[in-house]
Amino acid sequence: MQRLANAPVCCQNACGIIPVHMLPYAIGVDLGGTNLRAAAVDQSGKMLDRISGSTNFTEGREAVLSDIVSAIEKLRERYGAGGLAGIGVGVPGFIRMKEGYITMSNNLPYLQNFPVRDEISRRLGTLVILENDANAAALGEKWIGAGRDVDDLVLLTLGTGVGGGIISGGRVMRGAVGMAGEMGHITVVPNGNPCGCGNQGCLEKHASATAVRAMARLMQLGDHLTAKDIFDLARKESERGEKARTIWRVVGEALGIALATLVNTFNFPLYLLSGGMLPAWEFFAPHMMRTVEQRSFTYRATKSDTRIAQATLGNEAGLYGAAYLPWLEK
Amino acid sequence: MQRLANAPVCCQNACGIIPVHMLPYAIGVDLGGTNLRAAAVDQSGKMLDRISGSTNFTEGREAVLSDIVSAIEKLRERYGAGGLAGIGVGVPGFIRMKEGYITMSNNLPYLQNFPVRDEISRRLGTLVILENDANAAALGEKWIGAGRDVDDLVLLTLGTGVGGGIISGGRVMRGAVGMAGEMGHITVVPNGNPCGCGNQGCLEKHASATAVRAMARLMQLGDHLTAKDIFDLARKESERGEKARTIWRVVGEALGIALATLVNTFNFPLYLLSGGMLPAWEFFAPHMMRTVEQRSFTYRATKSDTRIAQATLGNEAGLYGAAYLPWLEK
Repeated sequence: MQRLANAPVCCQNACGIIPVHMLPYAIGVDLGGTNLRAAAVDQSGKMLDRISGSTNFTEGREAVLSDIVSAIEKLRERYGAGGLAGIGVGVPGFIRMKEGYITMSNNLPYLQNFPVRDEISRRLGTLVILENDANAAALGEKWIGAGRDVDDLVLLTLGTGVGGGIISGGRVMRGAVGMAGEMGHITVVPNGNPCGCGNQGCLEKHASATAVRAMARLMQLGDHLTAKDIFDLARKESERGEKARTIWRVVGEALGIALATLVNTFNFPLYLLSGGMLPAWEFFAPHMMRTVEQRSFTYRATKSDTRIAQATLGNEAGLYGAAYLPWLEK
Repeated sequence: MQRLANAPVCCQNACGIIPVHMLPYAIGVDLGGTNLRAAAVDQSGKMLDRISGSTNFTEGREAVLSDIVSAIEKLRERYGAGGLAGIGVGVPGFIRMKEGYITMSNNLPYLQNFPVRDEISRRLGTLVILENDANAAALGEKWIGAGRDVDDLVLLTLGTGVGGGIISGGRVMRGAVGMAGEMGHITVVPNGNPCGCGNQGCLEKHASATAVRAMARLMQLGDHLTAKDIFDLARKESERGEKARTIWRVVGEALGIALATLVNTFNFPLYLLSGGMLPAWEFFAPHMMRTVEQRSFTYRATKSDTRIAQATLGNEAGLYGAAYLPWLEK
């Protein structure tokens, strides 16, 4: 038997250790905006192995589908089909849970309205659970991350867009068709920036990396700055630094309005933020917290029971959450 | 044995009918802004009997407490302690579920931070469940009203203020301490009217009867108009009529912004509106629906699975919901 890198040793003797091909594990897949990752995770939340690769998303549906399937197959070959509890796949975009397809996705237009779950399932010959990537990330944080001690939390993912996931009673709140948790589209400025979703002033248009870059252009800071550049700039004691800090204030206030609405609506014990914008926490968080404090009576009345904090699993949250789905849904 | 009005006849013979003092029923109490109502309701949702009276809320804590207790006692005497499943009390204001008291109530300031649940319980010698009145109304609509066919719904009560209740999986979503569902304080206009809760631009400050009256004053329509007057005025083909219709447009748009946020967040199948503002439905609902349609991708994508409609139990919803609590919590 070939010894695979990272794979636990299969016990060939009668020593009482469960043979590796019987170890219970699940496979989680996270189909991000720029890459594809898959991991085998055991029931305690230990990542046994992971596969990560950049998929050329411009190559279309077939390329992405076969990349997903081959990543899962590799892990299944290493750990055996016997112990496989199931497969969870997190995808960016609005999904329809029952049908198992993506209704709208900016990143994966060619997967829209295609029976992606059933197609992966057919190729692998096993059941697959499809989930929105931010919902999966929220579940990951609940399972082994910053939310492990609570049963109810809201996660906002601050990246190219703003995603959201709601965990209620330890489970993903999905709503009627699987579209719950789209807090990136909460209206924070009724006459604000137009959004691809048809709305104006969505949180995502005022608090994502895309929004930050657009504000930098509007403030004539530069046409090709990244969110990271604008974060670095905010550290500078200069006119440009002041402008960059103004941008982070706008981000913080937009997040504060949305969070105040969420605290008033849910009265949950935990609200987490994750994603590529977190490094700028020191610049936007004070404005965010001040806004929540001012705008939410519930927050002020329940301060010792309400935490707004950074998520802890980073990029891995969605991968863990996707892997947890098969166990949770059983 | 005395025959009480409305009370079913107690079977004195061995005819197999359950004696009245053994019929299972619950007592619901709705402590409104201006009056107190109590009802005995059986397990099928049939109201057996009700007591209604105006309480002089200015008389203070003791007067209100003894009115509540005496209303419950009257019903318990009529139907017997044997079949009493429990007592639910709906109160206006933010409540703390575990402690059983009201944290903030504009209508009942003297009950704030007082152990109201335990005091009623002590005087009656039986357990009592305290609930926010809008939560109770949402539960009533779920039980036997407009929401009887769904397990998940949001209710907005449009009255002097705007209350809210969330039913998830057939149960009241309470949050960490019992304050969930305060959708009257969703921010719909970031720099809008100031609210007693500390926020600006709360839904309640743009879509309640109080807001409508304030707008009428601002538009110089009159200083003492009621919401009903402004509704009547909107029917008129005149300059004043046009102004009144503008007010209802503002109400509709504010509700639309809040509902779009709720639809995007929950993806629930049903959103209900109730309260004293409903007679003006024809004037605000078209603007509300247009706003939701425009602002919520989820609404457009799930139209056949998402209904925004009028609640059907009117004033009685909270009474039914309060009575249902003891059965639900068992």
